[in-house]
Amino acid sequence: MIKVDYGKLIKTLEARLSPKRFKHTLGVSETALLLADKYGVDREKAKLAGLLHDYARELPMEILLHQAAVLALPVDEIEREEPVLLHAKIGMHLVKRECGVEDDDILQAISLHTTGGSHMSKLAKIIFLADYIEPDRDFEGVAVLRKAAHTNLDKAMLLAYDHTISHIIAKHGFIHPNTILGRNSLLMQERIN
Amino acid sequence: MIKVDYGKLIKTLEARLSPKRFKHTLGVSETALLLADKYGVDREKAKLAGLLHDYARELPMEILLHQAAVLALPVDEIEREEPVLLHAKIGMHLVKRECGVEDDDILQAISLHTTGGSHMSKLAKIIFLADYIEPDRDFEGVAVLRKAAHTNLDKAMLLAYDHTISHIIAKHGFIHPNTILGRNSLLMQERIN
Repeated sequence: MIKVDYGKLIKTLEARLSPKRFKHTLGVSETALLLADKYGVDREKAKLAGLLHDYARELPMEILLHQAAVLALPVDEIEREEPVLLHAKIGMHLVKRECGVEDDDILQAISLHTTGGSHMSKLAKIIFLADYIEPDRDFEGVAVLRKAAHTNLDKAMLLAYDHTISHIIAKHGFIHPNTILGRNSLLMQERIN
Repeated sequence: MIKVDYGKLIKTLEARLSPKRFKHTLGVSETALLLADKYGVDREKAKLAGLLHDYARELPMEILLHQAAVLALPVDEIEREEPVLLHAKIGMHLVKRECGVEDDDILQAISLHTTGGSHMSKLAKIIFLADYIEPDRDFEGVAVLRKAAHTNLDKAMLLAYDHTISHIIAKHGFIHPNTILGRNSLLMQERIN
């Protein structure tokens, strides 16, 4: 059982985040809770990971790079070019240090929620998807993705990866190798089953 | 100066390949020659690499996997699932052994012509693009890609990578990590310049 003072945590998040992102965070947490029920994942972990997933999202990029240096985290070429990607990894570390979260499953879910990756737990997939489909999200294809997320976790992840990759191509951005490894591992698993 | 008996080589290729792929091969070689002139690359190498790029393309997948084992080539998870990808690497080795081609630039171009990759030589990029745009190719966007290839080699490579990735997503296939690494390295270079 994870002991959390939710009242205090909500206040902390409200102070750290813009109103828009605070609302998003609550939406991700609620959506993660629904998916946790659907897929037999610990509700408390889903709720908490949802609340904490963007803990470092609004740190300026200089601070993200500085934190990475302080924490001696490896920063790859893409993260150096687009430091915002670091918010997931840095968030994981800050949540551990500042909020006392020790649960590896929650920490992994926070760390992988932006790029995805191979070997994601069910909780990590739930947070990745909840981030994509929470009620405030509005983009072409979100309805299909919402339906998929409530039907089949892995098929929804594949759809989400495809959407991410197509979106990045359209905006001429870097595709993180972890996104490709995550997508390929799901496809591999689908072919085996 | 590379010594090649082109008469003999053409006969060999005609015997190894279906009429359609033989025609494609001649088209790639001719297109590569045009691009080589445009970008100051050795014409002989471009012509020869174009002719040889699909040397192993019609080997059955059992033979490709067998050859990989005989040559002690590492076969990654994606190549095991889609052995046709191996034709590039295996082709490189067979061309060396059976046609006596020793030029590293030509061998690299053959090896990378399907997935692409980071650190491609100009010749390798030319063969990758010639394979995409030779006169027989007909797909949505080929005209744009043809124009780009004759205007800016790296911009054309980026377009080709984007096309490859979108095409693979549409057909629900594996994206090879080398394709992503190749695309990211070009984007990185574009931002630096």
